[in-house]
Amino acid sequence: MKKILNKPENYVDETLAGLCLAHGDIYRQPQPRLITRSKKANKPKVGIVTGGGSGHLPVFTGYVGEGLLDAAAVGDVFASPSADLMADAIREANSGLGVLLLYGNYGGDIMNFDMATETVDFEDDIRCTTVLAADDVASAKPEEAHKRRGVAGMIYGFKMAGAKAEEGATLDEVTRVAQKTMENTRTIGCALTSCTLPAVGHPTFEIGEDEMEMGMGIHGEPGIWRDKLRNADDIAQEMFERLQTELSLKTGDKVSVLVNSLGATPLEELYILYNKITQLIDKTGATIVHPLVGRYATSMEMTGASLTLCKLDDELEALMNAPAHCAFWRV
Amino acid sequence: MKKILNKPENYVDETLAGLCLAHGDIYRQPQPRLITRSKKANKPKVGIVTGGGSGHLPVFTGYVGEGLLDAAAVGDVFASPSADLMADAIREANSGLGVLLLYGNYGGDIMNFDMATETVDFEDDIRCTTVLAADDVASAKPEEAHKRRGVAGMIYGFKMAGAKAEEGATLDEVTRVAQKTMENTRTIGCALTSCTLPAVGHPTFEIGEDEMEMGMGIHGEPGIWRDKLRNADDIAQEMFERLQTELSLKTGDKVSVLVNSLGATPLEELYILYNKITQLIDKTGATIVHPLVGRYATSMEMTGASLTLCKLDDELEALMNAPAHCAFWRV
Repeated sequence: MKKILNKPENYVDETLAGLCLAHGDIYRQPQPRLITRSKKANKPKVGIVTGGGSGHLPVFTGYVGEGLLDAAAVGDVFASPSADLMADAIREANSGLGVLLLYGNYGGDIMNFDMATETVDFEDDIRCTTVLAADDVASAKPEEAHKRRGVAGMIYGFKMAGAKAEEGATLDEVTRVAQKTMENTRTIGCALTSCTLPAVGHPTFEIGEDEMEMGMGIHGEPGIWRDKLRNADDIAQEMFERLQTELSLKTGDKVSVLVNSLGATPLEELYILYNKITQLIDKTGATIVHPLVGRYATSMEMTGASLTLCKLDDELEALMNAPAHCAFWRV
Repeated sequence: MKKILNKPENYVDETLAGLCLAHGDIYRQPQPRLITRSKKANKPKVGIVTGGGSGHLPVFTGYVGEGLLDAAAVGDVFASPSADLMADAIREANSGLGVLLLYGNYGGDIMNFDMATETVDFEDDIRCTTVLAADDVASAKPEEAHKRRGVAGMIYGFKMAGAKAEEGATLDEVTRVAQKTMENTRTIGCALTSCTLPAVGHPTFEIGEDEMEMGMGIHGEPGIWRDKLRNADDIAQEMFERLQTELSLKTGDKVSVLVNSLGATPLEELYILYNKITQLIDKTGATIVHPLVGRYATSMEMTGASLTLCKLDDELEALMNAPAHCAFWRV
């Protein structure tokens, strides 16, 4: 795939500069690679910090905003930010009531966030809790769910925890909500083409002109099967069934649905998938609440889509429908 | 490019079904291929109707909503809707104060909308006015501006006319605002890859692995030059200069900027372009108001981007900042 860029080594910084220029009412960059809300909350609240590699916009940075996150530490494309940067993000997000760290289950991010937590505990006396997004069912079996990667489903964590913190809840309450949200969230993706890392200049992986891969990760991690490209209804059905096996949606349940483009796949095709998925959910007797269809967590220009289901109780439903304001969220 | 679809002949209908299911609070499909607001306005207002081919989401259908359009007639991918469908769209949008037709300058659409206008004038006594979007500077020289195609800039027309109609303005006032908006709006695009029509299955045009085309149209119409892929700053500079030649931005001017992905080009790269464009506009002394960066008018999974500038006077600035509600607009 062809990319519009200047020097690859400036890709992330120029992106963040543009983001803050375009949406200065929402985002501020107090130091390189650290994005915070442009306006701090009026009164102290629990802070929420995320972080991770670039190349997934709107994840991670884009979800900083009112009713959502307080700060994000930004790494190179598909690479973890440093522990020092994460510590500074935590300091920015702290207003005295502690900080929840909510990010994807990747080794580098965990190592660095753990170091950052120790630093701010020791140097600044900031209490931190951690909730990991590990929603990708394709990346490990249910009995090894702790090995699963975090993908698009993390945005439900951002939304629910963000809304809870905005209510004035304690760190323990915000952490409980984030944990409950992620326990009820499952994602599976399928990729049709690779994306290209700016510094590499050629696709991360090769895939045949008539092939797709079910369960592929957002960095091109191996999936469940690779085979001929299936039609939209078959893709939707398999994705739904793999999530339904674990969530067991039934009559009376409420669920939010996220049909997400990995980048290049257009809205038209997301709606075709969504059309089939509503039929499959209707059959379970569950009710869809606040569906999301669009580009919420991407791998630059990767072609493909992911399906996320987030099962909602009354508390999560109310948090899902609470106000939120960033450049990429629609209430 | 690979597509996620079922039968190509169902691409449009399944897309619209999914759109209305996902955003039932905004869109309604009272008959196939006709999208209206799900809730009609409380009191009579001037109606605004658009229409055109599919494959450009959020254009056209996506901009139906409060403070924007009242109805859209939807054709096959890259094909005009029928005159009968357009007439029905006008009837849906009419609440007794007349209807503005605001759409792109394409022969098929003009022929069909003109027929529709005659029909509703004769059968229903509905007064219609027409404003064409012809914002693509690459498609004809300034002295033949009436031959120019309508591209991403039309969304400024939707926004300003929509806000004016919501104020309770007359058809003549709404038409004047739409006309003024389009007269002050210019767009240029560049394409890096083609998209693929669902019914065809292979790219609409071929372009070398290291090439781009400046000025290419959203259906693959020939542009100004085809050459080696340039870097983001060079692309931004040329696009800006080609628009600035006609708009002559200067100190004291206000301008809205739309950096639009044609589909596959990710947000990251749009922000890199925006970063440069702000520097170029700063040099003119003009002020940016309400910038838009994202996917506002696409060609399915085409790689590339367009730049639109809309010069604002006080009236247009107020209309740009007025409330609007659809699935794709952010205030």
